[in-house]
Amino acid sequence: METVIGRYFDYNSTTPIHPLVREVMTEALETFGNPSSVHRIGKDAKVAQHLAREQIAGLLKCEPSELYITSGGSESNNWIIKGYLSRWTGAHFHVISSVIEHPSIRETLRHWCRFAGGEVTFVPVDENGSISSEMVMNAIRPDTKMISIMLANNETGMIQPIQEIAAVARSRGIFFHTDAVQAVGKIPIHVQELGVDALSFSIHKLYGPKGVGGVYVNKAYLLEPLIHGGGQEQGLRSGTENVVSLLGAAEACRVAQVEMENLYGRMTSYKQLLVDQLSVLAPNLRINGTLDSVCTLANTLNFAIPGIRGEALAAYLDQCFGIAVSVGSACSSNHEKKLSYVLQEMGRDEDEIRSSVRISMGLFTSKSDIHYFLQSMERSLAHFFQCMPSK
Amino acid sequence: METVIGRYFDYNSTTPIHPLVREVMTEALETFGNPSSVHRIGKDAKVAQHLAREQIAGLLKCEPSELYITSGGSESNNWIIKGYLSRWTGAHFHVISSVIEHPSIRETLRHWCRFAGGEVTFVPVDENGSISSEMVMNAIRPDTKMISIMLANNETGMIQPIQEIAAVARSRGIFFHTDAVQAVGKIPIHVQELGVDALSFSIHKLYGPKGVGGVYVNKAYLLEPLIHGGGQEQGLRSGTENVVSLLGAAEACRVAQVEMENLYGRMTSYKQLLVDQLSVLAPNLRINGTLDSVCTLANTLNFAIPGIRGEALAAYLDQCFGIAVSVGSACSSNHEKKLSYVLQEMGRDEDEIRSSVRISMGLFTSKSDIHYFLQSMERSLAHFFQCMPSK
Repeated sequence: METVIGRYFDYNSTTPIHPLVREVMTEALETFGNPSSVHRIGKDAKVAQHLAREQIAGLLKCEPSELYITSGGSESNNWIIKGYLSRWTGAHFHVISSVIEHPSIRETLRHWCRFAGGEVTFVPVDENGSISSEMVMNAIRPDTKMISIMLANNETGMIQPIQEIAAVARSRGIFFHTDAVQAVGKIPIHVQELGVDALSFSIHKLYGPKGVGGVYVNKAYLLEPLIHGGGQEQGLRSGTENVVSLLGAAEACRVAQVEMENLYGRMTSYKQLLVDQLSVLAPNLRINGTLDSVCTLANTLNFAIPGIRGEALAAYLDQCFGIAVSVGSACSSNHEKKLSYVLQEMGRDEDEIRSSVRISMGLFTSKSDIHYFLQSMERSLAHFFQCMPSK
Repeated sequence: METVIGRYFDYNSTTPIHPLVREVMTEALETFGNPSSVHRIGKDAKVAQHLAREQIAGLLKCEPSELYITSGGSESNNWIIKGYLSRWTGAHFHVISSVIEHPSIRETLRHWCRFAGGEVTFVPVDENGSISSEMVMNAIRPDTKMISIMLANNETGMIQPIQEIAAVARSRGIFFHTDAVQAVGKIPIHVQELGVDALSFSIHKLYGPKGVGGVYVNKAYLLEPLIHGGGQEQGLRSGTENVVSLLGAAEACRVAQVEMENLYGRMTSYKQLLVDQLSVLAPNLRINGTLDSVCTLANTLNFAIPGIRGEALAAYLDQCFGIAVSVGSACSSNHEKKLSYVLQEMGRDEDEIRSSVRISMGLFTSKSDIHYFLQSMERSLAHFFQCMPSK
């Protein structure tokens, strides 16, 4: 198992569950009460749930009462969009988002605007995959009701100027949401300082279980539930609370808080090492995004080696060396092979996109794993360069 | 823990996780791949997911491709209602349901009809809490688009004549859904024989984890997703698949299939024992529902002892004997103390409702637990009868 984890370079897709989280969950699998029951067994579950909520709120620096637990990032994003916009159904409304959002934002906005009669503007990105607050500001119309811009991009790791964009939105009285699925656990989050009205996260991106995530929502806004029913989560998200996953989520958030600074430092040095060595192995290496440590996730490196197809390289690394990397995002592999829309929007041509690969590292990546990766890359590239037609 | 389980008489609220399910999940917590990833680690997760889906489909006797995994019963019910009815938004449409549905049906229908401009008829029940197919038939209008009637009621255990109602719906070309959350795992289900177009279930009601459930949907109908995004679950329910819970769900379904017949026999004999003895302890005992073993869940017994408040009896059993029973459903305890709407609809008056208690047993209930329960009831009733003003 350890070797498998060491060869896993796809943390932005999903993370291994942390041993401490696993321990908490294994123990919690014995806790079976329904927190909504009135007897003692139910009440024990309720107490555990409250403590867990406080721990998660601690990572986002919000009040536990501003936190709503969902089944994950996709539900969170769907809820925020549909739950906030539903009041303008049939009336004219406008939303601003960006061209590089996750499908659970992009497809949800497209669907909801079609369904409810609204319009959405997807602001473009620059060649590094960055969104400018000016672009967002210029897209604002009198009927703009919501702005949703992601905090960090899953494919390139680009961190967007959310504080600036949120300030613009707030000054115009527009509800501002950020999809922070790729950021929470990787960089410090402070919802008040960011100035966002809503923020989504997913626990399986930070060493916790799949099937649990949540949203922070500013108390000033009342959203229509996506899931109506028994009235759990302060009446806003019905369904029997998933106590085992919630406790796992809380432990994952605790671990993230403890590890974050140290992790960031390690990721930064590994990334530098990767870039330095890969540039030697493939002098024509092109980075998709920037290497600026302030506006890029330290764990993410997206690059193209012209002339070598990313898909072929990923398959070779997987089959010959057991190394897992990604080409585009995991979600897109559910569909017919499409080009990464994120790289397309950054102005890359088809050849550049087809030669791109994403590496994402994490808590269990060690320096020797990086060396193993680089050795494997050296051998893979030798193989591919050898096969290459000399044109 | 064993003692706690033995004193737990609230299985309709939630069930303890079966040791075999716990074992599968504990092991699966080490499986961390994203089934949507293309590399080997992702693919391993995908294979596990396929096998799990087959196992779950086996319990419902449907094709794996007709099965969609969700975060639980509430999401399932919300999806079916909103996903099917969304096409008639703004047009005139009518839905038929019943007065005893779970809040995730009732509240969702109320909300959606208000939001999308439809009308809903909630057909009444008789004094036993049973819905007649004639009542449903009589409620059909030319604009009726959907009928949703639960398979078994959570409070009384009454099994509804779904096959008859489904036949009526099919003959009129109306989409028919049943909320089978309380039935799956307790009685055999065969979606084709039932003749339903959609069926919801929740895994935590059958000794599996919370936070996972699903729906069967007839391939002839295309629903709009409730959660848009990456296109998982055949494009109809986005969100990274929760592999650990899915594997637990599959094991729970396997165990349910193996245990069901034997469990049914035990539950039936325990219930008889309970009724016989309780009638001796409290000769004025009144059953809410019927004792007919064909149209009632064998594990559920809802009764009133006139003169003793159910809430006080439940609290006494909890505090003095560690016994967990329920007063109304777990969900309703999220709200201010309200009277059970199910019992109200059965024509019970306030005194009768306030003196009602629900016992629900399950796989880990033994005969000696029943004896312990009856002893505790005897002592509790002695206490209450003693306190009772002689009027």
